[in-house]
Amino acid sequence: MTYHLHYWPTIQGRGEFVRLALEEAGAAYVDVARAREDDGGGEEALMADLAQGDHPSFAPPYLVDGDRVIGQTANILLHLGLRHGLAPKAEAGRLWVNQLQLTITDLVAEAHDVHHPVGVGLYYEDQKDEAARRAKEFRTQRIGKFLGWFETVLERTPKGGWLTGEALTYADLSLFQAVEGLRYAFPHAMKRLEPKLPNVIAVRDAVAERPNIAAYLKSERRIAFSTEGIFRHYPELDPG
Amino acid sequence: MTYHLHYWPTIQGRGEFVRLALEEAGAAYVDVARAREDDGGGEEALMADLAQGDHPSFAPPYLVDGDRVIGQTANILLHLGLRHGLAPKAEAGRLWVNQLQLTITDLVAEAHDVHHPVGVGLYYEDQKDEAARRAKEFRTQRIGKFLGWFETVLERTPKGGWLTGEALTYADLSLFQAVEGLRYAFPHAMKRLEPKLPNVIAVRDAVAERPNIAAYLKSERRIAFSTEGIFRHYPELDPG
Repeated sequence: MTYHLHYWPTIQGRGEFVRLALEEAGAAYVDVARAREDDGGGEEALMADLAQGDHPSFAPPYLVDGDRVIGQTANILLHLGLRHGLAPKAEAGRLWVNQLQLTITDLVAEAHDVHHPVGVGLYYEDQKDEAARRAKEFRTQRIGKFLGWFETVLERTPKGGWLTGEALTYADLSLFQAVEGLRYAFPHAMKRLEPKLPNVIAVRDAVAERPNIAAYLKSERRIAFSTEGIFRHYPELDPG
Repeated sequence: MTYHLHYWPTIQGRGEFVRLALEEAGAAYVDVARAREDDGGGEEALMADLAQGDHPSFAPPYLVDGDRVIGQTANILLHLGLRHGLAPKAEAGRLWVNQLQLTITDLVAEAHDVHHPVGVGLYYEDQKDEAARRAKEFRTQRIGKFLGWFETVLERTPKGGWLTGEALTYADLSLFQAVEGLRYAFPHAMKRLEPKLPNVIAVRDAVAERPNIAAYLKSERRIAFSTEGIFRHYPELDPG
């Protein structure tokens, strides 16, 4: 069975957390909006499909799995985690991974707000002054608080190196993506913070070495970071 | 077995979504931080406990259920939904309710950002101009988009009146709380929007009439809305 992932075709964005899980699992999937418009691709088709059916999504990404349509990034991952062994089988472990993922969700929302503090529908150029104020707090306090929390979790986890110990979960993949995004957007801030985050960086490195992930990162399927996505590099928001 | 809910003692905030589920279920719980400091209550104890153990939480609320500690609002509700019949038993239905809840989470995050656009750690008074810009978009576009999406979901749901049809779920309780919060914070905007949201308002009214919820809303356990919580009424952010 082939999954159909529906997400913006030109950015990593929130869809990337789902792509990484599908790639690690070696699952067959079509990244629908990246197809040619003749084949159902493109942003217009994405937005038209979004609102259809009994289970419409509020926003991309959403995943079609047979006759099921599942939206919200953390919810899609909850589903994939169970299907592909990317989460513990026991309910307590699954909820803990979901909690880790929802904390990534919070970090991602704040990373987005840095360049869009005043309005979702406005351009960055219309809110640069406000973004500079928000970026300062994010850089000096919030990144360290979020990643420091993951560092604490890893320090307290039994041996194994992953967030839950011996087995990789989708939360590890998402932590990798968060570190990559923050390194792209805030290279100076991350250079200062990383010495205090050895366990987080070890997870990042171990994910990058997974064969399926390494192959994906080198492929054309991996879209580059850019100032269209969630993690954006504006030099003025990350002074050296 | 008595649950122990840990959340800020003087606001509804994100903890209120959990309180409503516990109240509807008639579950025994202690709202720990609301106890006297001698009895383990207070904000200092809350923050000290937050970071303890193998499953620390990034932020309140968190729920202690026997030897399990569960954080993140939507995750706590996923747990309670299963325990107390506040979500479908079948996996597909449970994921759909989780998706509805995560969309409430997004709405709540944006409602918070209205009065804190520039920084989580700053006071509203330090970001009033930016808040006025952000409030305008939230009032005129985002509230209608979020609640309009729930209206669409309800229009497409088989008979029953609740978000998933015939049975109330924790997502209905959360939609009630979102409407109450938005009515408090943006009364003028909501007055304009509500005529287009008959099904959403019907859910709000039906939740308010549930015997356990009605009793809770009249009790001292229900904290009043205020300008310390997530939904805040500042008249300048909701001109008539």
